[in-house]
Amino acid sequence: MEDSAVLLINCPDRKGLVAAVANLLYRCGANITHADQHEDHTEGLFFMRVEWSLAGFDLAAFQEQFRNTAAELNMQWRLERMSQRPAVALFVSQYLHCLADILHRQQIGELPCSIPLVIGNHLDGEALARFYGAEFRYIPVKPESKKAAEEEQLRLLRAAGVDLVVLARYMQILSPEFVERYRARIINVHHSFLPAFSGARPYRAAFHRGVKLIGATSHYVTAGLDDGPIIEQDVVRISHRDQVEDLVKKGRDLERVVLSRAVMWHLEHRILCYGNKTVIFD
Amino acid sequence: MEDSAVLLINCPDRKGLVAAVANLLYRCGANITHADQHEDHTEGLFFMRVEWSLAGFDLAAFQEQFRNTAAELNMQWRLERMSQRPAVALFVSQYLHCLADILHRQQIGELPCSIPLVIGNHLDGEALARFYGAEFRYIPVKPESKKAAEEEQLRLLRAAGVDLVVLARYMQILSPEFVERYRARIINVHHSFLPAFSGARPYRAAFHRGVKLIGATSHYVTAGLDDGPIIEQDVVRISHRDQVEDLVKKGRDLERVVLSRAVMWHLEHRILCYGNKTVIFD
Amino acid sequence: MEDSAVLLINCPDRKGLVAAVANLLYRCGANITHADQHEDHTEGLFFMRVEWSLAGFDLAAFQEQFRNTAAELNMQWRLERMSQRPAVALFVSQYLHCLADILHRQQIGELPCSIPLVIGNHLDGEALARFYGAEFRYIPVKPESKKAAEEEQLRLLRAAGVDLVVLARYMQILSPEFVERYRARIINVHHSFLPAFSGARPYRAAFHRGVKLIGATSHYVTAGLDDGPIIEQDVVRISHRDQVEDLVKKGRDLERVVLSRAVMWHLEHRILCYGNKTVIFD
Amino acid sequence: MEDSAVLLINCPDRKGLVAAVANLLYRCGANITHADQHEDHTEGLFFMRVEWSLAGFDLAAFQEQFRNTAAELNMQWRLERMSQRPAVALFVSQYLHCLADILHRQQIGELPCSIPLVIGNHLDGEALARFYGAEFRYIPVKPESKKAAEEEQLRLLRAAGVDLVVLARYMQILSPEFVERYRARIINVHHSFLPAFSGARPYRAAFHRGVKLIGATSHYVTAGLDDGPIIEQDVVRISHRDQVEDLVKKGRDLERVVLSRAVMWHLEHRILCYGNKTVIFD
Repeated sequence: MEDSAVLLINCPDRKGLVAAVANLLYRCGANITHADQHEDHTEGLFFMRVEWSLAGFDLAAFQEQFRNTAAELNMQWRLERMSQRPAVALFVSQYLHCLADILHRQQIGELPCSIPLVIGNHLDGEALARFYGAEFRYIPVKPESKKAAEEEQLRLLRAAGVDLVVLARYMQILSPEFVERYRARIINVHHSFLPAFSGARPYRAAFHRGVKLIGATSHYVTAGLDDGPIIEQDVVRISHRDQVEDLVKKGRDLERVVLSRAVMWHLEHRILCYGNKTVIFD
Repeated sequence: MEDSAVLLINCPDRKGLVAAVANLLYRCGANITHADQHEDHTEGLFFMRVEWSLAGFDLAAFQEQFRNTAAELNMQWRLERMSQRPAVALFVSQYLHCLADILHRQQIGELPCSIPLVIGNHLDGEALARFYGAEFRYIPVKPESKKAAEEEQLRLLRAAGVDLVVLARYMQILSPEFVERYRARIINVHHSFLPAFSGARPYRAAFHRGVKLIGATSHYVTAGLDDGPIIEQDVVRISHRDQVEDLVKKGRDLERVVLSRAVMWHLEHRILCYGNKTVIFD
Repeated sequence: MEDSAVLLINCPDRKGLVAAVANLLYRCGANITHADQHEDHTEGLFFMRVEWSLAGFDLAAFQEQFRNTAAELNMQWRLERMSQRPAVALFVSQYLHCLADILHRQQIGELPCSIPLVIGNHLDGEALARFYGAEFRYIPVKPESKKAAEEEQLRLLRAAGVDLVVLARYMQILSPEFVERYRARIINVHHSFLPAFSGARPYRAAFHRGVKLIGATSHYVTAGLDDGPIIEQDVVRISHRDQVEDLVKKGRDLERVVLSRAVMWHLEHRILCYGNKTVIFD
Repeated sequence: MEDSAVLLINCPDRKGLVAAVANLLYRCGANITHADQHEDHTEGLFFMRVEWSLAGFDLAAFQEQFRNTAAELNMQWRLERMSQRPAVALFVSQYLHCLADILHRQQIGELPCSIPLVIGNHLDGEALARFYGAEFRYIPVKPESKKAAEEEQLRLLRAAGVDLVVLARYMQILSPEFVERYRARIINVHHSFLPAFSGARPYRAAFHRGVKLIGATSHYVTAGLDDGPIIEQDVVRISHRDQVEDLVKKGRDLERVVLSRAVMWHLEHRILCYGNKTVIFD
């Protein structure tokens, strides 16, 4: 597939923003393949994602000109090339369904990334990681060793040039310092329909409350537990016949789908965070 | 349609319960049309719903014999005739979509009940109630008049022989005394996916949290706010484009469906409450 | 609410289309509140919907200039004012759930239209139509009287200035001449997940095939039966326990939702037909 | 987990069936953990599934007595032990997502079976099969070699003692003779919402028809193409933005879930076929 560029913008809303971007792209000869914008009228904010073909397009020249436009219009922005596939690290504990799912999706080309590294605080994920060609590093985490473990994790992430950390049912809470280092670049899946049943043992809590649907939520990790910007959610119907173990089983399908969609959208540069919310561009 | 009987049982689980009920029904010549049972292994409880045709069946004789069986086996039970259509009262405030929906469903025969009475703390629902042949009573509720209002409501419910109270987006909290009087016979719809966003203004709260699905929940009313046994829930997808008023609009469809299913199942004697949960028989 | 304009465009795709539209709007001082575009790369087509506030905006001046741009760029286009609420006629037979639903939605302000006219080939819908303030006209349709009936219907539609015809479970097939007269302005709901079970008695056919989900489809009416551009579809789960009458009951909720969404999107000028498909703008 | 027995019954409906089964189980001292029955009133058929603990239960004695009861009441029946895990063979071509999914589910204990054998008409599935401990056999299929290929497949199935064949996106049509040999024991997944888009290239057909939801269907294989008893279906929403390759991608998640549920229910002895339909016991 030929290469394309993605421009993500957010800025205070005002007249002429679309015109300014569209004009510059037109003058540079861009062949726009997708464009989507959003106005938050309450907050007075403007968000835009444009994607165009890079065949015969002078990206450096565009970037130079756009820098001025962006400064004038007070834009925050990122420019990405789809051919530059981010490097992803997966963190895992003992449940392997999300790990197996993401590794397989990457292998069949569904996720535009490489996965050089899997870190586990248990050894369970090792065989899967190796099978799919990722390095597996075992870093157990005890309360007293947590700081050292995180330093080792960070060292490995840097060494592997990791752009995105995916917590594939990783059962440890990351320190605020770790989170800050990969701000808006750590995606977690929580096995409940947040904000309901945040924290530990959500399936058990859902069972005891007697809900008729259970859910899963993927979100960016922030310092607050299960409190970061939500990327995707889904639910499945349960009944009085379902025991906690049935919820766990049904929930696995939700977790897989909800986490993999979040990872895919992140890798396709479709997500803009603002405040504690996300814009997901089509 | 010919008449049928419904027997609802719950009791401590032990061997031979199905055999005991099935035998007695067989000896009495019952033609069983539906049967469903459920065992809660954790709590050691047994639940059963049996429905059979009353054509040529001596219900009084059966009931007399069953009384003994039930006593021996420590059963709590109810015996209902489908031909005895319960009387339902609807409580409403200013939003009329659930009111219009339930009145219409009753009229086309979807809900096996009569609706003799609609009580509003605003006048908005009057025309609809009258159009569908229900009496409308306007009872405004102010903090200082709440006690008197509830007494008037209870008097009207008794006078109309009401079996079930449906809060069709009724924006007042009933007192514990009122709730106790119609225990497990008041159904409310809350416009969120409980337990998330209980209390006031759930759509606003959902908007600010940035969830990707919104929900609605129908439940029996208990003394605790939005805390009673859940009967039904459903959700609909939203996006960053949806403002609070869009959530309100999308939510109306959920509220209608979730409330009407709960009312239908209650009227078909498909719901057993235990603890703070419900069994919904197929 | 203040007035806004909606511009709908489709044309052959080429560079500079967004820039051309955005520039003109900017020069005219438009405050864009929503914009969405779509490229069909296979067909080489471009689609756009822009909405902007009309406060202090000279629409006539814009339209004059845009006419030239559009001609140059080979655009097909429509310009709509949201304050000009289309007049809708509902056609109905004996099932009234869609009729009741749409009339109620219009009354509470969910549908930006007026509903001056309801036409029934049975009398069942008369009371509902009158209650909601619409004129009801009874036009029975027999094979031998069909041509005359349609002439009478067309006369009434013209007299009431009707812009959109909604077939709310109207059980007659319109002639190709009628359809042509209101091309892309007649919306029907079919009670199956098209293209499965087109034609008569879809619930019965679904029951006999043993499907596990049933659906409903809203679509623009064309000369081919159940074959027009699909606007919206939805499904609900069924089980082996559901008899044909249960499918009918569950299906009613689908039909209501699927039809009313289609009507709403049409009225908000969100739908562009091309070939036998629809673009639904966010 | 302790062992349990499952009894599946279907027979002409008559009074006393539940009593007969429940009595015999009670007299034999069975501790029933699940029971579910269904009456098809149109066809006059009765279906039942009972599950009970085998701790201290004399299964041979029960079976001997039940044989008489069953003969008297004209019952067709099967008696299964949950501890006897069926052997499953997976057939695969080049798409591996269903293969990877089922192998992983089996490994984590979600599917009560062994998977001794994977047969591919391409080599793509070999590494995955081996990783999960299954034997992989490559049997290419050409029109002229089809008969010999099926003979080889059947030989391998017999040698491995296979009870269930799962077509995990296997792109070859099995001969009627093969299908007959494993009647009601071959499960396929078709990538459409049957009966819509049966046959080849369903995603392409769905794209051209402009549907708003796509589906997947798992079913028992019969001699008629895509025409066997449906076990499970699910759908996902698409929009005008989705090209054929997006449907393929979204469809993969449906196919995985719909196929694995069918396999799980089959292995838990929850499915009864009758005519061209299935009863799925809770």
